[in-house]
Amino acid sequence: MISDKVIKRFLQYRICLIKFQRLGFEKVFSYNLGEEVGITPEQVRKDFSNFGIKGNKKGGYDIVNLLKAISEIFKWDKDKNIIIVGMGNIGNALTNYKRFAENKIFIVATFDLDPAKYTKKLKTPIYHPDKIEKIVKKFNIKTAVIAVPEFAGQEVCDKLVSQGIKGILNFSPVILRVPDGVHVNNINLGSEIESLFYYN
Amino acid sequence: MISDKVIKRFLQYRICLIKFQRLGFEKVFSYNLGEEVGITPEQVRKDFSNFGIKGNKKGGYDIVNLLKAISEIFKWDKDKNIIIVGMGNIGNALTNYKRFAENKIFIVATFDLDPAKYTKKLKTPIYHPDKIEKIVKKFNIKTAVIAVPEFAGQEVCDKLVSQGIKGILNFSPVILRVPDGVHVNNINLGSEIESLFYYN
Repeated sequence: MISDKVIKRFLQYRICLIKFQRLGFEKVFSYNLGEEVGITPEQVRKDFSNFGIKGNKKGGYDIVNLLKAISEIFKWDKDKNIIIVGMGNIGNALTNYKRFAENKIFIVATFDLDPAKYTKKLKTPIYHPDKIEKIVKKFNIKTAVIAVPEFAGQEVCDKLVSQGIKGILNFSPVILRVPDGVHVNNINLGSEIESLFYYN
Repeated sequence: MISDKVIKRFLQYRICLIKFQRLGFEKVFSYNLGEEVGITPEQVRKDFSNFGIKGNKKGGYDIVNLLKAISEIFKWDKDKNIIIVGMGNIGNALTNYKRFAENKIFIVATFDLDPAKYTKKLKTPIYHPDKIEKIVKKFNIKTAVIAVPEFAGQEVCDKLVSQGIKGILNFSPVILRVPDGVHVNNINLGSEIESLFYYN
């Protein structure tokens, strides 16, 4: 099992590689990537060689091939279907977030308890949470976003896990309890801002 | 200088403590917090004693006092004024995010290049980025959110840093270069979701 840290480093490598590509570069060296990501070139080379990606001492890595290899390893080249539970401000912003399509992330459905929201004309449908089971099965969904208020976070999480969800991006400011094999990424917007105030 | 990791652990402790308090508890032991946060009780006690917070072997920590001590150390009890640059989906969602007020986070102004947005009736004003300098000085702002498209991320960052901003929450999918003394927290929504797909 690869650790979160490694996956997040590869996500950063990819961001840098796309940037270099847009700047017109065709080759990249481990020290270029290391400098951008803030780690040593040795760590970059180690990460790559762990996955069988080889560079060339003189020429470095070919950016196109490197991007292709990384996307294949982490399945980032495939379509990524997700659902969102909780259609408040955050849920809404995510359904309108244009960059998801670039990354082949597709929101197949969203869920909210408020019936007033079901009639809204949106690109992505909003259903009652009763329909989670049906949609998850129909589209073989394994990944969900939780954007419900704190008090409902764990309940929604349990429901999703019972339907076979394996990956959760959690915006609810609560520490979710999940069984082994289920992976949670947390984004606590308040905490992210508060942590910056210590340095002021 | 306290590391990010330590600050983030304390933010998690606070989330747990508020939860315990709501459940009616008055005392908490290091193993309660360790279990919730996923670390050892020893680490919890070490974190607390590093800041002069002492518990009682038999009685544990008093939750009210512990919350107060933590808030004082990290300045979380003070008003936290911020600005947002970029009023797309994410910027908009943040201005409407109700939990910020609970955490004493106040958005004093937002900025966007699109003049069509200036006439919108919102609780929080939207200005042209030309006004960043004036607002930052007037309200002594040290913390900002960057929610602009990728291509504008570094430029906005440089402008904010030149105005004395010390803490940045960055939603722009780019690795920002900042001078020493400026702190950046990154939220890359696409990456957060993509990293979950490795486990599917």
